Amino acid sequence: MNINNSKQNIKNVKFGANPIIWDYVNLFDCIFGDNVSIGAFTEIYGSTIGNNVRFQSYCFVPKGTTIEDDVFIAPRVTVLNDKRPPSHGKFWAKVIIKKGASIGGGSIILPGVTIGEGAMIGAGSVVTKNVPAGEVWMGNPAKFYKHKKDL
Amino acid sequence: MNINNSKQNIKNVKFGANPIIWDYVNLFDCIFGDNVSIGAFTEIYGSTIGNNVRFQSYCFVPKGTTIEDDVFIAPRVTVLNDKRPPSHGKFWAKVIIKKGASIGGGSIILPGVTIGEGAMIGAGSVVTKNVPAGEVWMGNPAKFYKHKKDL
Amino acid sequence: MNINNSKQNIKNVKFGANPIIWDYVNLFDCIFGDNVSIGAFTEIYGSTIGNNVRFQSYCFVPKGTTIEDDVFIAPRVTVLNDKRPPSHGKFWAKVIIKKGASIGGGSIILPGVTIGEGAMIGAGSVVTKNVPAGEVWMGNPAKFYKHKKDL
Repeated sequence: MNINNSKQNIKNVKFGANPIIWDYVNLFDCIFGDNVSIGAFTEIYGSTIGNNVRFQSYCFVPKGTTIEDDVFIAPRVTVLNDKRPPSHGKFWAKVIIKKGASIGGGSIILPGVTIGEGAMIGAGSVVTKNVPAGEVWMGNPAKFYKHKKDL
Repeated sequence: MNINNSKQNIKNVKFGANPIIWDYVNLFDCIFGDNVSIGAFTEIYGSTIGNNVRFQSYCFVPKGTTIEDDVFIAPRVTVLNDKRPPSHGKFWAKVIIKKGASIGGGSIILPGVTIGEGAMIGAGSVVTKNVPAGEVWMGNPAKFYKHKKDL
Repeated sequence: MNINNSKQNIKNVKFGANPIIWDYVNLFDCIFGDNVSIGAFTEIYGSTIGNNVRFQSYCFVPKGTTIEDDVFIAPRVTVLNDKRPPSHGKFWAKVIIKKGASIGGGSIILPGVTIGEGAMIGAGSVVTKNVPAGEVWMGNPAKFYKHKKDL
């Protein structure tokens, strides 16, 4: 465990057991569960993160986001929280990513979206609607592709 | 104001009054107006930026870009300046973002594009053409969606 | 040459002649040829890179990637290596970018894709299939646009 070294900014963060944190991260005002890993160049603030969640490099997770247990966030995923920026809170809406979901690299999750339990989002998607549990969505805007059990 | 601390690279930059600069930024050869804010992991170089402009995290703004007053740049916006990379200057073209425009998270603005006054670009867009004043565009490639007054 | 200063993480990397490396980079377990340049906020690991390859800012190149000579990687390009993340190696597939190819800003290259010699990928593309030599592809998903000789 190597936390708050000279190449990290970590403030007002509560970690569970066994966090793995790379360098060049900007983390503040968060609660993390056990066994989280956080890749380089990742910023997470004002969010609640469950157990066994893995963020790869360059992830951005803003205020108000909830990420449940066992979620995987591939590199360069962007979660947004302002429906009409800059609304200064007037049009903020929270993203929820439910247990066991996997978000593909470079994807963007729009404000207010809920990603269902065990859902998968393909790389490079722009997710504008709620994604039901167990479904695979992809594209810009993201659409239903398959049920995960049929992959 | 916390400028040129050990987690920032800032060289040959002129700031106006009251800049707010986060860590892990790479800023050089720029002129900024008053009241700018610049998020973490943002790189801006060779550009001219007006007053009250806000860059969120991970923005990339290369040489030759002009951003007017009151513009909002959401996280992970990429401005490009080379139409046929790597052209070494032969096909460079400048991006202009006019007063009061708002660029959604994760969007990419192609070389030579002008974003009109008060225009809005939806998250995850790839903007390949000029966007007229007061219009909302989105998609890849970005297309007209609505007039902002009808949002 | 300014390598392994306090703003860089460089471990187990073999450089050729004349590397140019910006700050805020995360490089490990790589072999680079001569005359490479690597922009700020770039992460490359477990990869083999040829001569005269240029990475602009925010590029992400994961384990198993091969990039041949004279390739140009514009800002914010993401290369992926896991077809069904998180597969823990079960569905990993390697990306190959062949000699002289140019990858446009913000593009995402999916696992297993080969970009042919001299091919060009337009900005903001999501490349899901192999791209033949000398062709220009763009879009999400990326499709054939032109032969490079007809640009």
